[in-house]
Amino acid sequence: MSTRIGIYGYGNLGRGIECAVKQNKDMELVAVFTRRDPSSVKIQTQGVPVVASSDVESWVGKIDVLVICGGSATDLPTMTPKLAAMFNVIDSFDTHARVPEHFANVDAAAKQNNKVAVISCGWDPGMFSLNRLYANCVLPCGSDYTFWGKGVSQGHSDAIRRIEGVQDARQYTIPVQEALDAVRSGKNPELTTRQKHTRECFVVLKEGADAKRVENEIVTMPNYFSDYDTTVHFISQEELDCDHKGIPHGGFVIRCGKTGWNEENTHVIEYSLKLDSNPEFTTSVIVAYARAIARLAKEGSYGCKTVFDIAPAYLSPLSGEEIRAHLL
Amino acid sequence: MSTRIGIYGYGNLGRGIECAVKQNKDMELVAVFTRRDPSSVKIQTQGVPVVASSDVESWVGKIDVLVICGGSATDLPTMTPKLAAMFNVIDSFDTHARVPEHFANVDAAAKQNNKVAVISCGWDPGMFSLNRLYANCVLPCGSDYTFWGKGVSQGHSDAIRRIEGVQDARQYTIPVQEALDAVRSGKNPELTTRQKHTRECFVVLKEGADAKRVENEIVTMPNYFSDYDTTVHFISQEELDCDHKGIPHGGFVIRCGKTGWNEENTHVIEYSLKLDSNPEFTTSVIVAYARAIARLAKEGSYGCKTVFDIAPAYLSPLSGEEIRAHLL
Repeated sequence: MSTRIGIYGYGNLGRGIECAVKQNKDMELVAVFTRRDPSSVKIQTQGVPVVASSDVESWVGKIDVLVICGGSATDLPTMTPKLAAMFNVIDSFDTHARVPEHFANVDAAAKQNNKVAVISCGWDPGMFSLNRLYANCVLPCGSDYTFWGKGVSQGHSDAIRRIEGVQDARQYTIPVQEALDAVRSGKNPELTTRQKHTRECFVVLKEGADAKRVENEIVTMPNYFSDYDTTVHFISQEELDCDHKGIPHGGFVIRCGKTGWNEENTHVIEYSLKLDSNPEFTTSVIVAYARAIARLAKEGSYGCKTVFDIAPAYLSPLSGEEIRAHLL
Repeated sequence: MSTRIGIYGYGNLGRGIECAVKQNKDMELVAVFTRRDPSSVKIQTQGVPVVASSDVESWVGKIDVLVICGGSATDLPTMTPKLAAMFNVIDSFDTHARVPEHFANVDAAAKQNNKVAVISCGWDPGMFSLNRLYANCVLPCGSDYTFWGKGVSQGHSDAIRRIEGVQDARQYTIPVQEALDAVRSGKNPELTTRQKHTRECFVVLKEGADAKRVENEIVTMPNYFSDYDTTVHFISQEELDCDHKGIPHGGFVIRCGKTGWNEENTHVIEYSLKLDSNPEFTTSVIVAYARAIARLAKEGSYGCKTVFDIAPAYLSPLSGEEIRAHLL
């Protein structure tokens, strides 16, 4: 029997879940929930209803895993605990500092109602977290490095759009090749923020806006740009729409460590992602963990979990015999 | 309380386990078992006894996890099931075709005696297997690639040493850069054995041996070299001892896959290792899994397992709260 998936929120992430479910033959999309007028939301899967999010409770018992596609800032902190009382759920909560609080809230709701919940799933947090953990356990004496990009930062793009005179913008975070090379060499360099990443901005000005002032406001913006070497390109809306419409991302998790009686040997573990679509990869990870959630729920292993708590075999549609035969 | 580790077999792997235990403050080496005369075996850790392997049974109850450092061809198929009846055990069994049989034998012995066993632990099988599994689950529509090297192949070095006129030899397996680049580009190339790796041999001849004949015997050797582009360098024993004394290795696990409603987006997941010492990295992985075994045994989760069956958090000395705070 297929795992019945519900999507709660139909933006970039919701659409990515829909695509990922289509690729997994043991998964079935049964409903999409939206805060908008359901009749205004067109989805791609034929025969699947779009339902008002206020009606979600009537779907209890008809959904194995509800994927919550909301934002970390305001949506998920209330949505996930509330929905974890009714459904097995998964989210991509990524506000690092608030993870302990979110975990505790979701765990309490899930345990009280015999549900399984996974929070902070995706690639960072998610696959990057896993690789940091494995590498730390294998090489206890060493240093961790995470680089992001080349990829679009939605938050930085939004920050530029808020500047007066800016019509549209796209910001790319780019890892510095020299820093990557130094890390890979096993030299355990200490790197400043500026040495690790540069920022490249493509900006469309409103008519009559002062390019010099806009550029200065960008490169001096605290938190977002002032600690980085930032380049700004002014382009037309047509160029932006044509050349920068994708949402690529990626990055690198590297750990260098020493082994040997006198720590005489150096090892470099590197995990990297090169992604054409940040939301589609994020949701591909989430759907694999949705499979695990359905299994854990059947076993009665209730409560809130992260990628750290789930044995890899639970993610696979294959049996233990099959994965040992083909992937070990 | 520390996890009490026993080492069964004191070669390259046994010495690696000894070094890795030293790096993990929650681990303690309590005994080294050898088939040689114990008085002839000097170990590095002060105050730890070297014991005849025939006396291992008298250590039941004094060891939490016994690490079996034997060869896959003849040692492990009998050693691991036998010892799994007495101890929680871990091995690095790597004869792929015989994994189902080995798993079944070890599982039966461990379950009958309420023990936990992990087989086929290390980096390949081991960390590479994990990365193949995760990547397959996240990107179900895609292709897998594994490259090995640059590194020393013990089996190929041994094969050269068996040729008449050869005094000593060291063989390096080298991934072909163009093949790696093609895979990373996301083009899903089909690659032959010859296109993926080359083999480089450093050979010391016995006095009077015919270099031309030896070279020909190497490059035409079936299974080992005939399917590869192989280069042979003749050097002196001094050069071999000085320039080729290390046991470096490494490699790459890459999966390219598509997502999107029409599979229009491409993603590349890459995991790579660059290792100064193959046995020391292998044993660093094993010691992390030994920690997991001790925990699983306390929980009463008996039987044979692989890296696929163990949740990542079990490998870490840190608590769930700590890993969520620092590594998520």
